[in-house]
Amino acid sequence: MPVRKPVFDPPFNVVRASHVEFGVRDLAATRAFYVDCLGYLVTEEARDALYLRAVEERNHHSIVLRAGREPTVHALGFKLASEEDLDRAAAWFARKNLPTSFPDVPFQRRTLRTADFCGMPLEFYAGMEQADCMLQRYSAYKGARIQRIDHINCFTPDVQQSYDFYTDLGFRLTEYTETDDPDPKLWAVWLHRKGNVHDLAFTNGYGPRLHHIGVWTASALDILHICDVMATSGFLANMERGPGRHGISNAFFLYVRDPDGHRVELFTSDYLTVDPDLEPIRWSLRDPQRQTLWGQPAPKSWFEEGSLFAGVPAREPALAAQPIVAR
Amino acid sequence: MPVRKPVFDPPFNVVRASHVEFGVRDLAATRAFYVDCLGYLVTEEARDALYLRAVEERNHHSIVLRAGREPTVHALGFKLASEEDLDRAAAWFARKNLPTSFPDVPFQRRTLRTADFCGMPLEFYAGMEQADCMLQRYSAYKGARIQRIDHINCFTPDVQQSYDFYTDLGFRLTEYTETDDPDPKLWAVWLHRKGNVHDLAFTNGYGPRLHHIGVWTASALDILHICDVMATSGFLANMERGPGRHGISNAFFLYVRDPDGHRVELFTSDYLTVDPDLEPIRWSLRDPQRQTLWGQPAPKSWFEEGSLFAGVPAREPALAAQPIVAR
Amino acid sequence: MPVRKPVFDPPFNVVRASHVEFGVRDLAATRAFYVDCLGYLVTEEARDALYLRAVEERNHHSIVLRAGREPTVHALGFKLASEEDLDRAAAWFARKNLPTSFPDVPFQRRTLRTADFCGMPLEFYAGMEQADCMLQRYSAYKGARIQRIDHINCFTPDVQQSYDFYTDLGFRLTEYTETDDPDPKLWAVWLHRKGNVHDLAFTNGYGPRLHHIGVWTASALDILHICDVMATSGFLANMERGPGRHGISNAFFLYVRDPDGHRVELFTSDYLTVDPDLEPIRWSLRDPQRQTLWGQPAPKSWFEEGSLFAGVPAREPALAAQPIVAR
Amino acid sequence: MPVRKPVFDPPFNVVRASHVEFGVRDLAATRAFYVDCLGYLVTEEARDALYLRAVEERNHHSIVLRAGREPTVHALGFKLASEEDLDRAAAWFARKNLPTSFPDVPFQRRTLRTADFCGMPLEFYAGMEQADCMLQRYSAYKGARIQRIDHINCFTPDVQQSYDFYTDLGFRLTEYTETDDPDPKLWAVWLHRKGNVHDLAFTNGYGPRLHHIGVWTASALDILHICDVMATSGFLANMERGPGRHGISNAFFLYVRDPDGHRVELFTSDYLTVDPDLEPIRWSLRDPQRQTLWGQPAPKSWFEEGSLFAGVPAREPALAAQPIVAR
Repeated sequence: MPVRKPVFDPPFNVVRASHVEFGVRDLAATRAFYVDCLGYLVTEEARDALYLRAVEERNHHSIVLRAGREPTVHALGFKLASEEDLDRAAAWFARKNLPTSFPDVPFQRRTLRTADFCGMPLEFYAGMEQADCMLQRYSAYKGARIQRIDHINCFTPDVQQSYDFYTDLGFRLTEYTETDDPDPKLWAVWLHRKGNVHDLAFTNGYGPRLHHIGVWTASALDILHICDVMATSGFLANMERGPGRHGISNAFFLYVRDPDGHRVELFTSDYLTVDPDLEPIRWSLRDPQRQTLWGQPAPKSWFEEGSLFAGVPAREPALAAQPIVAR
Repeated sequence: MPVRKPVFDPPFNVVRASHVEFGVRDLAATRAFYVDCLGYLVTEEARDALYLRAVEERNHHSIVLRAGREPTVHALGFKLASEEDLDRAAAWFARKNLPTSFPDVPFQRRTLRTADFCGMPLEFYAGMEQADCMLQRYSAYKGARIQRIDHINCFTPDVQQSYDFYTDLGFRLTEYTETDDPDPKLWAVWLHRKGNVHDLAFTNGYGPRLHHIGVWTASALDILHICDVMATSGFLANMERGPGRHGISNAFFLYVRDPDGHRVELFTSDYLTVDPDLEPIRWSLRDPQRQTLWGQPAPKSWFEEGSLFAGVPAREPALAAQPIVAR
Repeated sequence: MPVRKPVFDPPFNVVRASHVEFGVRDLAATRAFYVDCLGYLVTEEARDALYLRAVEERNHHSIVLRAGREPTVHALGFKLASEEDLDRAAAWFARKNLPTSFPDVPFQRRTLRTADFCGMPLEFYAGMEQADCMLQRYSAYKGARIQRIDHINCFTPDVQQSYDFYTDLGFRLTEYTETDDPDPKLWAVWLHRKGNVHDLAFTNGYGPRLHHIGVWTASALDILHICDVMATSGFLANMERGPGRHGISNAFFLYVRDPDGHRVELFTSDYLTVDPDLEPIRWSLRDPQRQTLWGQPAPKSWFEEGSLFAGVPAREPALAAQPIVAR
Repeated sequence: MPVRKPVFDPPFNVVRASHVEFGVRDLAATRAFYVDCLGYLVTEEARDALYLRAVEERNHHSIVLRAGREPTVHALGFKLASEEDLDRAAAWFARKNLPTSFPDVPFQRRTLRTADFCGMPLEFYAGMEQADCMLQRYSAYKGARIQRIDHINCFTPDVQQSYDFYTDLGFRLTEYTETDDPDPKLWAVWLHRKGNVHDLAFTNGYGPRLHHIGVWTASALDILHICDVMATSGFLANMERGPGRHGISNAFFLYVRDPDGHRVELFTSDYLTVDPDLEPIRWSLRDPQRQTLWGQPAPKSWFEEGSLFAGVPAREPALAAQPIVAR
């Protein structure tokens, strides 16, 4: 029985997925993608890094692009409810014999760097420098008019173990995919803290690796428009999958790849999940509408490619079950 | 200094505004409005009551229409995180010498009936009978394609007192309107539990009365469409205000009145408010864009009319400040 | 040099593509598709036929569904500017030794039945019984909220000959696809009368056959919604291609198949073409964005399958060039 | 009986309303309005003039802004089907003893300058320099993403006479407003050439004056977005009316005023009018849904203010009937 009850009194209070730091090989090309094409706002431009936020975000950054030799991911950031929660988090990870440190992180208050059981680099903090809210400076809306970061989706070599680890931390299951075995195995899980479908999701695969970050737009038309823009301004090859409707989460989605291959999902339209009596939704791995309600299977790259975490070895998953793949 | 810090460890855990029970004089006419026009789904039809939900909602009902002689409001419903929270809520209200009882409420588990300091009838519970989720049965989408209840907005004779009362219960301020006096007074407050702009709001006025319930749609085009439908199917007079964009909350809105005058706001596009370091936004009572970003003032009825709570006397507010009114 | 100047003084004045008559094997199943799912209005229901129109149309019908043993197409209907044009049309076709007759056609005034050079059955008329305009009875909008028929798209065994034939009749080229040979061949043409991209289009293929009729919606969101509806109400297998953006015509599209395999394109967003100095747009057959601006190739069925015209033999095209096909 | 049959064989063939030349007092401020805010493309920038086009337009310009001392309108431009039509137009106007000349007009081929019976300055031509079509260069879409000019709407001191004049030229009535007198008078008319609701409309009033030009967007959301942009970037006072839905024409609209008070209607969603048997729609002057389907009356300025034609005296209309006015 792989699915458990939610943990409503976690050891520390994670508020939401908040940011990610990407290693990128060419800052100028990456800026062209995120800023000129997708429409991200630049909060800060340093010599070797770019700090971006979306129009709704008052947090200083939700994407950090750091120049480097490898297209890796340096950190997955989660905001906590208080400084006390940060201390509780540090104690919890230390008890688990997981690495903990408090490096200086620009524009963030006290920040805990740690990692989960399989090495996924995590960054916890409770306060970030606040930037001007641009939500009602509509003339600043460009590109896809992205409003905010929503979630982080990762490959894990062991979905059950990832699910158990983050469930202990209070992440709550909303939807999941299982094999149809008599003894079913978890193939993917969607877990939330902030009250919609997810802050963090895991899919079975060579990992740990980042599959994508998901960013939210107010309208499906914003997503159709960025398809038109990308297809006609040199970014056609960066469009990987969609637009379409996921069965899981009900999101209207588009997956794009940045110049280093980091994957971004633009999406809208999921649902509220705060009710204590809300039951998670089960999907069969063999249900094609799980992936795309409208039937189109995802391309092979979508199942196989992801971003390595800096310095963290990945391994093949134990579970060999395979989803429906397009080509 | 009328604005306080949020209370992050409330005496009991309110999850969200969940439902409202309206007294209506003509069930058939009211059904025509909510079901045939707005597109609400009927979960249960009893002899003297109709239980409605929107397409995303698994809760058995978010609107209860109960036949009666007066167009009053019987209860404002809030969902709690657990049965233990329900007991804590009962104890808290009892300590405040406010009335508490646990009546049988159809389709809900244990339900606490109580009232706030000025008599506003509250209903707390932790579990409701779950209905089929229709979110992905798109052929059931009708009318405005309303997805879920979002919030409850009330007139209060004392905004400061209402703000203090609900802040103590963990409701967190996101935006507020103040007079421009040297000693500014609160004129309206928007308070949330579930992580967007509000679950509960208060405006200065003859009260306590319900101003409106707010219900969420996925697209502004759903709201434009229901304008077209209402205007051409006998509901033109039920359209009170909008469509438009609120400065406060950034919501794209339409206000409509049901056959008994109960007000419903259809809206979309607010923002995420879970960050511990998110500062509330202040608006001046004299800022016309506060009401409507695009400049149109609200009609007089919108400031003056509301639904009385059954058996609860209302009184004039102490604060005499007046907003900008259209006509 | 396969492309000619437009003929601005044609032998008779075709106003627009106006209707099509489909032979269908199961009227009830076909009604479920067009009326219950897509939202077509039923103007008239006879024992063996159904007359449908879309919400903007005052013409009695734009789709006639006639019960029969074969899933064929009986007629492609075009409206003329006047009764005099009808006589001129009859004379013109007679001069070309093409069959002409004036059968009684229900709900239409005098109607000329004829055929083009390769047997495609044409129906010309100048007046049809007018039905109530439902454009502003918004509560009648259902399904995809289709507004009107826009165009007819056919396979032809000889694109050059079809292009020449209809150009003589005043149909004007707006876009075309050519092979990249030193001596380029026409592979597809888009021809209009009414002032947008097309009333009639031809693609190289086994023909004559109907490829699809195109019907217009006011918003791309109407098309996304019908995807959701079809995918979750038993019509998933009827979704053939899209949604997507055509390079050609700039249309946002979805292709669906009715229970007999007749193809319908729901689309929106083309452009105005009335200017005398508007130059046709050339596309290379090898340009993948020609088909789909966003890159996805069309499925094989889309290039191979079509509806035969009743009693009209089809033949393989002379031109062997092949477009880019998905699978 | 004020309404006549359409003239299907006019003395010359007008294709569509194509452009307008505005006299503006501050080119920089006007550029900020049309280009930076509304998103118009600049085809040509001269010392004393700016030539603008929208994203779909291959015509060199649809709006000419000419620096001058008075905020007047210099010309209303209509495209003809051929150079022969241009000669026929010149002959026709000469026969009516109306002024005709063929001045050099930059970027246009041979251009006839003339005027109608009450002095409204008209510009006819058959060919204009063609610019790059930006329809599929989506990264160039800004502001309201305006696609093309659609129509010209004028005040006339005598609607019946204007109607008769342009009907003789082949402009065809689609909708009209009448007084409810036993002997009804025309109060407003909508006339088309290109096959949708109008190229030219007239309303009873102090005239001749330009009421507005209408420009087309692909989506109502483009119009909502420009409301948000204007309201938050210094153009709030330029928003005059809407957004809303007209009863007449079914258009979803927004009226804005440029820095000189010239009025622009952004609109979408009218309908096709090419059928010979399409009957014009009659509206009563006293029907409030005529103006706005959703009930809001237009502001007084909308009925009273307009742009004078350079050097053309205006006069009060004979007809004293008054529409419903907001304030």
